[in-house]
Amino acid sequence: MELRILGCHSATPKPDEYPTSQALLVKNQWLVIDAGEGMQTQLRRFGIKFGRIKNIFISHLHGDHVYGLFGFLSTLRLLNRQTEMHLYGPPELNELLGQVFKFTQVELTYPLHFHPVSGEGLQLISDNDKFTVHAFPLKHRITTHGFLISEKPEPRKLNMDAIKNHPEIGIWAYNNLKAGKDFVTDDGKVIPNEELTLPPPRPRKYAYCSDTAYLPEIIPYIEEADVLYHEATFAHTDKDLAQMTFHSTARQAAEIARTARVGKLVIGHFSSRYRDLNLLLEEARSVFPQTELAYEGKSVIF
Amino acid sequence: MELRILGCHSATPKPDEYPTSQALLVKNQWLVIDAGEGMQTQLRRFGIKFGRIKNIFISHLHGDHVYGLFGFLSTLRLLNRQTEMHLYGPPELNELLGQVFKFTQVELTYPLHFHPVSGEGLQLISDNDKFTVHAFPLKHRITTHGFLISEKPEPRKLNMDAIKNHPEIGIWAYNNLKAGKDFVTDDGKVIPNEELTLPPPRPRKYAYCSDTAYLPEIIPYIEEADVLYHEATFAHTDKDLAQMTFHSTARQAAEIARTARVGKLVIGHFSSRYRDLNLLLEEARSVFPQTELAYEGKSVIF
Repeated sequence: MELRILGCHSATPKPDEYPTSQALLVKNQWLVIDAGEGMQTQLRRFGIKFGRIKNIFISHLHGDHVYGLFGFLSTLRLLNRQTEMHLYGPPELNELLGQVFKFTQVELTYPLHFHPVSGEGLQLISDNDKFTVHAFPLKHRITTHGFLISEKPEPRKLNMDAIKNHPEIGIWAYNNLKAGKDFVTDDGKVIPNEELTLPPPRPRKYAYCSDTAYLPEIIPYIEEADVLYHEATFAHTDKDLAQMTFHSTARQAAEIARTARVGKLVIGHFSSRYRDLNLLLEEARSVFPQTELAYEGKSVIF
Repeated sequence: MELRILGCHSATPKPDEYPTSQALLVKNQWLVIDAGEGMQTQLRRFGIKFGRIKNIFISHLHGDHVYGLFGFLSTLRLLNRQTEMHLYGPPELNELLGQVFKFTQVELTYPLHFHPVSGEGLQLISDNDKFTVHAFPLKHRITTHGFLISEKPEPRKLNMDAIKNHPEIGIWAYNNLKAGKDFVTDDGKVIPNEELTLPPPRPRKYAYCSDTAYLPEIIPYIEEADVLYHEATFAHTDKDLAQMTFHSTARQAAEIARTARVGKLVIGHFSSRYRDLNLLLEEARSVFPQTELAYEGKSVIF
């Protein structure tokens, strides 16, 4: 997987600071998660082809996570897109889009399939042969969901060096080997699968949590994710403000990451009040050392 | 006046190319004209303080002229703006904003006064002691208006070198002199105003025409404007495409400028199909030499 940060600041803009949006490369397909204003420009800037995007996930309907969606979907129409697009988000998003497109006279050239996301617990919202996407509730001033994107295991890889020592194993047997089955010779001898194949790459998991108050209830959902993006709008000295606005502090994000035993924590959604974000980084690292700051254009490959 | 181009490209985005938006400095106040996505970031980039903006004019409801409005108005709320804002645009804009703010739960901290713009002919839509704004219909696929911003004449300036030769002229007489009146001495002698005052700076006029098909009917409205911004989406070789989509070619923009005897023409709203915009510039200059290309950040002081 590759996570590419398109924007990671909270709402008030500065040049080169964009509100929340990110792209995730999974099995050669780019998913977009949240769509703050300027998202389409950022996709262009980082060379992410619009045609490779088939799924968009919107966590909640605050403007700094959704105001870039209208322009992006409109642009696809100008580019005469025909391929279907799948959009996941709060049920009201469909009506919002309908209103905006009605007043601004947008007629799409491609099918837009809307999938409402609501409800409690960990829910499977997208499933194909390559990966799954689950949603789970966060705790914010408006209904908000986090997302967990999980690769499906790949078949085992053929160990051709080993196979060539067994001329009796024909190409016809390869699919069974990839599926993990042992090979049985004509005279009944069993060659264990482990001798003929190599393990596939470990499936990766990415968890996205923004925006949310400190919410340990999500830990079972995101446990052992390779990368966790968690909002850290405030420093812990402003924890009352965080609580009041249903946001998290950097330390709280790190506590979630530590308890969930994730591989790496990326923090973002920074309030514009902090001139030096290293304050937030150091705070989080004191709890969970494998923490990194998000920034526009940051790429995390895992 | 100072015209600052925030964005001047048509809808499909590229890094550092923004859809239509501009700011106009008139008598120490910034007006915003159209609000393509990213407008608020561009205001920040060019150092235009949000607090000095009291009026926004929206020509029409296509997304590349209005999708930046939602984020900008939301940001002002986060900055706890209290000063009123005046918004001028198509009548439906008010309902569009209402819908977007309902779904994205935006409550403004400041009064937003909406002034619907519709109808035919040249209409006065804003009038204060410093300038007026008129709207006039353009010809596009959706109801669209252009804008004419006109400074009001300033009072004449006192010629202190001349006045000091007349000790009988007291401070009490200055306002009458600035208003253009002659001075009459106690013994009835008339000192002509022209001997005691200097002419004020000539009031400036700015005309904005985007988006529109070639429309000579606007010429009486924009005659002798100091600066005309006119869209030039296409080159004249694509004039059929321009006609079909209700846009103008660079040559048509220049013909409007020449016939209206404006001081300077700035062309913009370029289609992304032209890699070298000098093609459009040369085409327009062959008809109207005082033509310039718009670009993001361009400043025209007049």
